Amino acid sequence: MGNTNEPINEKTKRRIMIKVAYDGTDFHGWQFQKGQRTVEGVLNEALTETLKEDIEVIGASRTDAGVHSMGNIAVFDTCARIPAEKVPYALNQKLPGDVRVVAGYDVAPDFHPRKCDTKKTYEYHIFCSPFDNPLKSRHAHWTYESLDENRMDKAGKYLEGEHDFTSFCSVNTQSESKVRTIYDVNVRRAGDEIIISVTGSGFLYNMVRIIAGNLMEVGSGKKEPESIKQILEAKDRTAGGITAPAKGLVLKEYEFIENPVIKIVR
Amino acid sequence: MGNTNEPINEKTKRRIMIKVAYDGTDFHGWQFQKGQRTVEGVLNEALTETLKEDIEVIGASRTDAGVHSMGNIAVFDTCARIPAEKVPYALNQKLPGDVRVVAGYDVAPDFHPRKCDTKKTYEYHIFCSPFDNPLKSRHAHWTYESLDENRMDKAGKYLEGEHDFTSFCSVNTQSESKVRTIYDVNVRRAGDEIIISVTGSGFLYNMVRIIAGNLMEVGSGKKEPESIKQILEAKDRTAGGITAPAKGLVLKEYEFIENPVIKIVR
Repeated sequence: MGNTNEPINEKTKRRIMIKVAYDGTDFHGWQFQKGQRTVEGVLNEALTETLKEDIEVIGASRTDAGVHSMGNIAVFDTCARIPAEKVPYALNQKLPGDVRVVAGYDVAPDFHPRKCDTKKTYEYHIFCSPFDNPLKSRHAHWTYESLDENRMDKAGKYLEGEHDFTSFCSVNTQSESKVRTIYDVNVRRAGDEIIISVTGSGFLYNMVRIIAGNLMEVGSGKKEPESIKQILEAKDRTAGGITAPAKGLVLKEYEFIENPVIKIVR
Repeated sequence: MGNTNEPINEKTKRRIMIKVAYDGTDFHGWQFQKGQRTVEGVLNEALTETLKEDIEVIGASRTDAGVHSMGNIAVFDTCARIPAEKVPYALNQKLPGDVRVVAGYDVAPDFHPRKCDTKKTYEYHIFCSPFDNPLKSRHAHWTYESLDENRMDKAGKYLEGEHDFTSFCSVNTQSESKVRTIYDVNVRRAGDEIIISVTGSGFLYNMVRIIAGNLMEVGSGKKEPESIKQILEAKDRTAGGITAPAKGLVLKEYEFIENPVIKIVR
């Protein structure tokens, strides 16, 4: 078991990895909480019902209440003989409309999605218009301020690289080390929307939302792009700006540096 | 009254035009129906409460259940002294989150939004992917088929011009003449989405959804682009293809050939 180079036999307990898209609006976040509607909770229920086994998923990213996903990752163990690529078809019939499993793969039985090297991409969507728009309001933070996306893009570049992100995480962050690597920050405009895209090795609690909040202040002219460098160097959350609301945030993509997918002999 | 070239005094009864955006998902369409949640109904209620007068709007387009809008138009008469451009701010405080008034203008007292020359643009959104996605599913029709947007664009061109659109409207259409002018049909891809944009002088009942249904059949290879010409010439609804679902349709923009906006002397 656990040798990712060798096929395993499907009669043994297998680990399956699924890719999960959801609209976070009506969820109390990813993580299971008794009596609350959570993504983990509805996945466990649907999997247990579908595979007739008690299933508990392990999620890659425990997104907050209101945060959306195009590609969060979870794994679970099962003795069921269902081909992994058929799991989405079976599961989506049981899932509510605001969650969809969009891929399924067999992975090594010891693969843990939070204990491996990854690149994660988050997007933060801002709708800039004198009035909010009901066709945008579930998945974008609305502001009546005009924002300059070029200033925001310039500011974001100061965050690229390996840094101590103490100024850019919630004071409630539990991680001991606040050092993370950001590979890429870019800010672009698509019509009335500004999209901040951030790719990194990992993110601290509220980190992308605090980055978005600071970049918005740069975009509106309240702060200079260069101020981001000073905030970073202060290593103090109180040096930074606001935490942008959850609903503008979407977990876009997970990339595993070492591909965990294995072939099953049938 | 009714002279659009001369300013009118605001102490007289005025007509105000508003631009209305809504997510049609949770509405039984635009038109007021007793006991049903309609866009017209919630607008009348919010206006009556805000202006302390019985207000009934006249809508430009009575969109069907499930159809969305970025720019439907309505007018109403009031003696209230509120500046037209402030109406959105006052009204949005009373409206539910799935309707927003995004502009307000004074117009001539005899201006009727259904009795004047207009250009209307509708968009039909199709999400092409093996699985539906909760972040797309409210505002796009999902299909697992791959569609060729170039074939669809070619097919759409046959619809441009003045034609009898009997083959492209519901058999329940009440209009006597089925002749309409389409100025422009174009089909483009944006990532996983295909967007059909149609601009015309006016549209028959279900016309854009039937155009979208036919173009999808062209995109998937079930029909040739040239078949659209034959369907048009048949002048028979049974010659055409399916009516695409309402939720992919959005009324994008209204353009009045003669600008109805007037200046108010204060």
